[in-house]
Amino acid sequence: MEAHQRLAFERASETMQAIIAHRRDRKDHTRAEIRFLAQAAAMELVPDYQLSAWLMAAFLNPLNETETAWLTEAMADSGERLDLRRLPKPWIDKHSTGGVGDKTSLVLMPLLAACGVTVVKMSGRGLGITGGTVDKLASIPGFRTDLTAKQMQDQAARIGIAVTGPSGELAPADKTLYALRDATGTVENLPFLVSSILSKKLAGGAESVMLDVKTGFGALIQPLDKSRELAGWLVRIGRKCGLNVRAAVTDMNAPLGVCVGNALEVREAFDTLAGRTNGRFRELCVRLAGYALDLSGTATGDREGREMAERAMQSGAALGKAREWVAAQGGDVAVVDEPRRLPAAEVVVEVRHAGPRAYVQELNARHIGETVVRLGGGRTKKDDKIDPGVGLELPVTVGGKLEEGDLVARIHAAGARDAEAAEASVREALVLSERPTPMLPLIYDLV
Amino acid sequence: MEAHQRLAFERASETMQAIIAHRRDRKDHTRAEIRFLAQAAAMELVPDYQLSAWLMAAFLNPLNETETAWLTEAMADSGERLDLRRLPKPWIDKHSTGGVGDKTSLVLMPLLAACGVTVVKMSGRGLGITGGTVDKLASIPGFRTDLTAKQMQDQAARIGIAVTGPSGELAPADKTLYALRDATGTVENLPFLVSSILSKKLAGGAESVMLDVKTGFGALIQPLDKSRELAGWLVRIGRKCGLNVRAAVTDMNAPLGVCVGNALEVREAFDTLAGRTNGRFRELCVRLAGYALDLSGTATGDREGREMAERAMQSGAALGKAREWVAAQGGDVAVVDEPRRLPAAEVVVEVRHAGPRAYVQELNARHIGETVVRLGGGRTKKDDKIDPGVGLELPVTVGGKLEEGDLVARIHAAGARDAEAAEASVREALVLSERPTPMLPLIYDLV
Repeated sequence: MEAHQRLAFERASETMQAIIAHRRDRKDHTRAEIRFLAQAAAMELVPDYQLSAWLMAAFLNPLNETETAWLTEAMADSGERLDLRRLPKPWIDKHSTGGVGDKTSLVLMPLLAACGVTVVKMSGRGLGITGGTVDKLASIPGFRTDLTAKQMQDQAARIGIAVTGPSGELAPADKTLYALRDATGTVENLPFLVSSILSKKLAGGAESVMLDVKTGFGALIQPLDKSRELAGWLVRIGRKCGLNVRAAVTDMNAPLGVCVGNALEVREAFDTLAGRTNGRFRELCVRLAGYALDLSGTATGDREGREMAERAMQSGAALGKAREWVAAQGGDVAVVDEPRRLPAAEVVVEVRHAGPRAYVQELNARHIGETVVRLGGGRTKKDDKIDPGVGLELPVTVGGKLEEGDLVARIHAAGARDAEAAEASVREALVLSERPTPMLPLIYDLV
Repeated sequence: MEAHQRLAFERASETMQAIIAHRRDRKDHTRAEIRFLAQAAAMELVPDYQLSAWLMAAFLNPLNETETAWLTEAMADSGERLDLRRLPKPWIDKHSTGGVGDKTSLVLMPLLAACGVTVVKMSGRGLGITGGTVDKLASIPGFRTDLTAKQMQDQAARIGIAVTGPSGELAPADKTLYALRDATGTVENLPFLVSSILSKKLAGGAESVMLDVKTGFGALIQPLDKSRELAGWLVRIGRKCGLNVRAAVTDMNAPLGVCVGNALEVREAFDTLAGRTNGRFRELCVRLAGYALDLSGTATGDREGREMAERAMQSGAALGKAREWVAAQGGDVAVVDEPRRLPAAEVVVEVRHAGPRAYVQELNARHIGETVVRLGGGRTKKDDKIDPGVGLELPVTVGGKLEEGDLVARIHAAGARDAEAAEASVREALVLSERPTPMLPLIYDLV
C-alpha cells in the first residue's frame, strides 16, 4: 500500500471509530456521519468489522427518524440513481415486504396499467419462505427479467408496464450492510428495514410507492403492532425523502390465495385477472388497486379507485394488459389463457380431510412456505436453483368448514417421497377445530 | 475451499450468529458458547465482522461475572499455557493497569525477591501514555527482555526474579479481540478489561497476583468509582479462576515519582532501592510490597510485610538483588550504581517557577504522558521506535509549594525545538494556585 493510501485508510478508520462511539453512546449522528458511513460501506473504505460494530450499536441504540431518512438518501446516493422522471404520468411502484403465496404484484401491475397508471417495478429474487415476483414471472417460457433501465423505460412508455430483476448497481451500500446484518443478527430493526427498502426505491427512480406491509406468521415482522409501526415508519421516512407513499398492513398468517409455488401462482394471478377466481385474494387486489389509484391521483378516493379496478377486471382490460406485458417481455402469451403451458411438477398428490366436520383454525403461512422451499420451490441460499413447477394448492380458508373427503391440498412435487414429506408438513401447518372459528381480517390498517 | 471446509465454516458462522443473538437479547451465555467464541477468535473460525458485532453487543449488554470468568479461562486456554508450578514457593506476579511514570515494578520485583518471594513477570510493551516495564528495562545496555519460558523458569529458580516481554503464543484469543476492540470503540468495558488482563496472567502460569489499579487523569479508567469497580471485578473474577489475587487502587492523577521516560525511570528506581529518594513513590513501593508479602504468605499482615520491605531496602539487600537481576538478564550491572551509564538525551533544559509563591494544585498525568510521547519516549502505534533517553523530571508534588526560581521541570529532549514544545506542554499540565492545596492520596482502596 502506498503511503498516501495508508493515510487515507487510517483516517477513514478513525472517522469510523468516532461514528461507532457516537452510536454506542446514543449521541445523534450528523448528516455528514451518515453519508460517510454509506460511502464507506459502498466503497469498502473501512473494514467490515467496523461496519458490523456500528450495526450492532445501532441495533441496540436505534437511529431516530431523521437519521433514518439521511441513511436512506445516503444509501440511495451510494451508487447509480435511475432517472425515471420522463415516464408517462401518473406512474407508480408497488412493493410488498414479502410473504407466502403473495402474487399480488402479478395482478396489480396489469390492473393498474389498465386503469391508466404507468407501473414500473424493480423486483428482488425470493429468499427463504418469501417468494420473488421475478422468480414467478421467470416460470413463463421466454419471459425476460433482465431489462436494462433504458429498455424498462421504453417499454413502460409504450404499454404502461415493465418489470425487471435486481440491479447490482443500485444502492451498493445497502447491499454491503444487508449482507453484514444477515451474518450478525441485526436484521430486525426498524430503521435498517425501512432504509433498506426505501433506498432501493429511491435509487430506482420511484416517485409514488404503494407499500403492502405483511403481518403474521409468514411475514418478515410477525406481531401486528410491530407491522403497524413498520408501516408508519415507511410512510414517514418515505415522505421525508420526497416520496409519495402509502402503506397497507395486510394479513400473512395464512398463505395468500390458494396457490404457493412459482408457476402455480402465475396461474392463479391470470385466473384472477380473467375472473375465474372469487375469494380473499381477488378482494385484496381490488382494494390495494383502489388505494394505489387514489395515491396516484387517478381516482378521487379509495372507493372510486376500487370501482375503476372492478371495471378493468370485468371488462377484460386488465387481462388484455397482462397479455401485452408478457408479449413485450418476450414471454409465451398463450400461457395467460392456457395456464397448462406453464412448467408442471412430475407428481401431483391430493390430500383430503379424513375426520368428521371441522373448521380451519389456522393454516400457518411460515410452515407452508417452508414446505414449498423443501419441495424445491424456493431458495435457502442466494445461488440455489428453484424448480418452477412445484408447490401447493390449498383450497382451504381460515374460518372455513371441512367435511369428510373435502380437498385440503394438492401437492405438486418432483417425486413421490417429496410429496409424502410435504403431506406431513401440510397436516402440521393446518390446525382444525370442532367449533366454528373466525375468519382472518384481510387488511388491518392503512397508513 | 473444499466442500467439507466450507461446511465447517458455515456451521461455525451459524453458531456464532446464535451467540451474537443471545448477547444482543441479553440472554445468558453457556460455558460452551464462551469457549466456542474464544476458540473462534484464536483460530479465525469466524469472520472478524461477527466477532466485532458480538463485542458491541457485549459492550452494551455486558457479560455477568460468571460469563466473564468463563471468558477469562477460555481465552487463557486458547493458546499455550505455561506451567510454572515448579517455581520456588512462594512466588508472585505483579501487574499494574498502567500509568505515567509508573516504575513500581522495577522497585517491587527486586524488593520482594530480597524478602524471599520468587517474582516472575511477563510484561507488555508500552502504548500511548502508558509506559511498559519491558521498554524501561530495555534502556539498560545489554538487558535481554526476550527470555523463553524455560530461561525464565531457570533464572527465577536461581535468583528469585525474572522478567520477559510479551509472548505471541499466550492467550491468542485476547490478542484478536483486543485488536478488534481497539478499532470498534469497545475497549472500556469491565468484563473485557478484566478478562483481558487475567487471561494473560492465567496463561502465563500465575498463581498469586498483586494488582495495582491506577485511577485518575493518567489511568486507563479515570473516575475513582469505576476504578474501584474494576479492582473488585479483578479480584472476584481472579478468585473464580483459581488465582490468589489482591488489588490496590492507587493514584494516577499526577505522574508517579519524579521521572517520566524510560532511562530516567530506571534511574529513579535504582535511586529508590539505594535509598537516594524519599517521597511518595518510595512510600507506595513499600506499601505495595507489604500487601504482596502478606498475599504470598511471607508476612503475617500488611504491617509486617511493610517492615520486611523497609529492612530489605535499608540493608541494601534489595539493591543487591537488582544487581543480580540485571546481570542475569545480560545487562550492564554498573548502571545500578552509576545511572549516568544509561542512555541520555542530547538536550537538557531546566524550567523554573517565574511568579510569586504558589501551590501545585494539579499536575495532569495524561498531559505529561502525552508530552513524553511527543518527545519520542513512547509509542502512538505498536511498531513505533522509542528514544530511551528522553523524558521529564518533575520535582514538584501536588499540594507542594513553589517559590520564585524553584525548579519545575528538567526536560530531556532530542533537540531544542522538541524541548521548547515540551516546556509549553508542561506549563499547561501544571495548575498553580495562590492558596495552599491538599495533597493527593496515595492509595484509595485495597480489595
